[in-house]
Amino acid sequence: MRILDTKGFTVQGFKVWGIHCGIKKTDKKDLAIIYSDREAAMAGVFTRNKVKAAPVLLDMARIKSGKGQVIVVNSGGANACTGKRGIADAKATAEIAASELGVGPDAVYVASTGVIGEFLPMSRVESGIATAAGLLAANGWEQAAEAIMTTDMYPKMHIVQEEIGGKTVTVGGIAKGSGMIHPDMATMLCFIVTDAVVSAPVLKKALAGVTEKYFNNITVDGDTSTNDMILCMANGAAGNKKMASGGKDLKKFFACIDAVGRSLATQIVRDGEGATKFAEITVLNAKTPLEAKRAAMAVAKSSLVKTALFGEDANWGRIMAVLGASGVNMDEARTDITIGKARLVEKGLGQGKAAERDAGAALKQREIQISIDLHKGKAQATVWTCDLSSEYVKINAAYRS
Amino acid sequence: MRILDTKGFTVQGFKVWGIHCGIKKTDKKDLAIIYSDREAAMAGVFTRNKVKAAPVLLDMARIKSGKGQVIVVNSGGANACTGKRGIADAKATAEIAASELGVGPDAVYVASTGVIGEFLPMSRVESGIATAAGLLAANGWEQAAEAIMTTDMYPKMHIVQEEIGGKTVTVGGIAKGSGMIHPDMATMLCFIVTDAVVSAPVLKKALAGVTEKYFNNITVDGDTSTNDMILCMANGAAGNKKMASGGKDLKKFFACIDAVGRSLATQIVRDGEGATKFAEITVLNAKTPLEAKRAAMAVAKSSLVKTALFGEDANWGRIMAVLGASGVNMDEARTDITIGKARLVEKGLGQGKAAERDAGAALKQREIQISIDLHKGKAQATVWTCDLSSEYVKINAAYRS
Repeated sequence: MRILDTKGFTVQGFKVWGIHCGIKKTDKKDLAIIYSDREAAMAGVFTRNKVKAAPVLLDMARIKSGKGQVIVVNSGGANACTGKRGIADAKATAEIAASELGVGPDAVYVASTGVIGEFLPMSRVESGIATAAGLLAANGWEQAAEAIMTTDMYPKMHIVQEEIGGKTVTVGGIAKGSGMIHPDMATMLCFIVTDAVVSAPVLKKALAGVTEKYFNNITVDGDTSTNDMILCMANGAAGNKKMASGGKDLKKFFACIDAVGRSLATQIVRDGEGATKFAEITVLNAKTPLEAKRAAMAVAKSSLVKTALFGEDANWGRIMAVLGASGVNMDEARTDITIGKARLVEKGLGQGKAAERDAGAALKQREIQISIDLHKGKAQATVWTCDLSSEYVKINAAYRS
Repeated sequence: MRILDTKGFTVQGFKVWGIHCGIKKTDKKDLAIIYSDREAAMAGVFTRNKVKAAPVLLDMARIKSGKGQVIVVNSGGANACTGKRGIADAKATAEIAASELGVGPDAVYVASTGVIGEFLPMSRVESGIATAAGLLAANGWEQAAEAIMTTDMYPKMHIVQEEIGGKTVTVGGIAKGSGMIHPDMATMLCFIVTDAVVSAPVLKKALAGVTEKYFNNITVDGDTSTNDMILCMANGAAGNKKMASGGKDLKKFFACIDAVGRSLATQIVRDGEGATKFAEITVLNAKTPLEAKRAAMAVAKSSLVKTALFGEDANWGRIMAVLGASGVNMDEARTDITIGKARLVEKGLGQGKAAERDAGAALKQREIQISIDLHKGKAQATVWTCDLSSEYVKINAAYRS
């Protein structure tokens, strides 16, 4: 597998673009279209929040067909908690795009992100779709990635290539995240496209894998959005031979989806609202995989641990307190904690000034590894989080103003 | 019931004081003693964190006797995650106080709060106990309340009186909180004393009531401490007649404990780390009491809701998103949200500019009521929280520096 430069990347048979059409109050881009020049196999995962945005409800119905051709995404408004009018607006968005692009309305998926509880300005959406449709280009991914941003600091993209079934297959994706980021669903907006020849059920399986492994294991602020979704489109333009179930080609394809998923999920955490640190938290030797994840997530979510990361303070007592409160099988006297390469805690006890100094040095880095060994079983889990900075508070206290 | 001025309050038969003995690096008070001139009935509730501080483990064993006479509390060090040495230090603290005050060592309870993972400076604790014991005074509660503070901005006290069994009975208490405040246990240090004649089992029942009703329903940052405890002492100095089970006197006594518990628990939230707002969140008409509490707590814990409180932003979409993700039975189209007196959301939909303006005005107050009606059943719950301010991050990023 080769990782390609995201600058000007293309995926055969796809055209995309992103523009500003006035949904956002600023002059930033707020509408993107992803278009496949032929019908594509589609798979999707959606938020498990009981309050689901209108576009989520629409796409959940459409994804049953396993096919589609267009995705219209807007930022600047979530179209969530908007009742029947919200559903009508999401449908109208799809219909406008369908008529602009000459596809059936059921082939269009819709995604929204932004403030909850406000209606979409449909006249702007309508003219925006017309404008964006006229600009669609193979190398427009950066524009599209920008157009789906809310409080994100930078666009999130990843692209890889692999030789599969005698052809070069490309898998690329864009994502947005930043706030209201928490697992137990697809945790943001993410669109992955590929020119591979692959069926919708296989695509669905690949997507379920990366969701479980990456997107459900990241947290920024513990809040679960109403709009999260990942959509994956495969248009078959690469013309590779059908990948045999359990074969080498399929493994290579899954590895490509895995690489794009991992990169985009961790980019979301790296660019968490106000984040200055990116932390990978691994729990080792838990009693069950579920407990490993629960313990790791408890640490990843703790405001006290996250402010200590921001303060570059090797305050391991906060980690122990969180583990003890997490409800998992743990025994203080067996627990080891390592930050970077510094074994800070062994059998529940602090290992002195030198270890604290080494851990302190590790905390000064932008990327931090924290490893917790519970010595209770054989299960492990890794999750990703960012720090809680004054900037997070500033962003979210002022978000709507 | 009369609420008394906390300034210079006294409870018959109790002497207390608080001093600085050098456990804290600053010159602030860090050691308090609460002393009853006779053996008292005792009840306690303790953290449910699996990682329990040494003093918690010691007191949990001692409370089985249902009696005691002295409480020694230090701030500046939690004596948690300190292994066998920590247990020995807690025992030694009790023994030093016992010998200073001429009581049996089993009559002494110990409590600690502060940084986890550091050993207590026992020589300072020893001289501190001697000094404080020499200063004990009936009106020393304010000094004691100050000596148990960590990042608290002000001491927390409450005192009430009631005529019970032909005598005036007093119930008073002090507490500390501020950070690592989250339910599912006694959420901080709290000491309630009374001169009532009451048995340990009745005291225990009264304490369980306020814990469930108040202390388990407050949150500052969702983190559960290793050191939380409430101890309640009743020394019988008031000489009231025994309170009959189910009688009017017992009801009055329970009301006194309830008043002190409620006041101290909510004072902890009002003085949450960096708090500028105090919010009471009530969920109405949930399917079960557990779901009512779960929904209310999910809202109370949400970083996005708490930053919106700080920003005085009536961003009700965040509340809906949290409710949807909380796992309780809810239906967006049935949910009403009221902030102050403003009905912001009805049947899942925003009620327009005027409602937002009224809610915005309510959010400008220091005390805020948020009411959520799920229209799903008949259960309700109230919890208390504070906002998440830049100051919270500042305090916790720098706490150990």
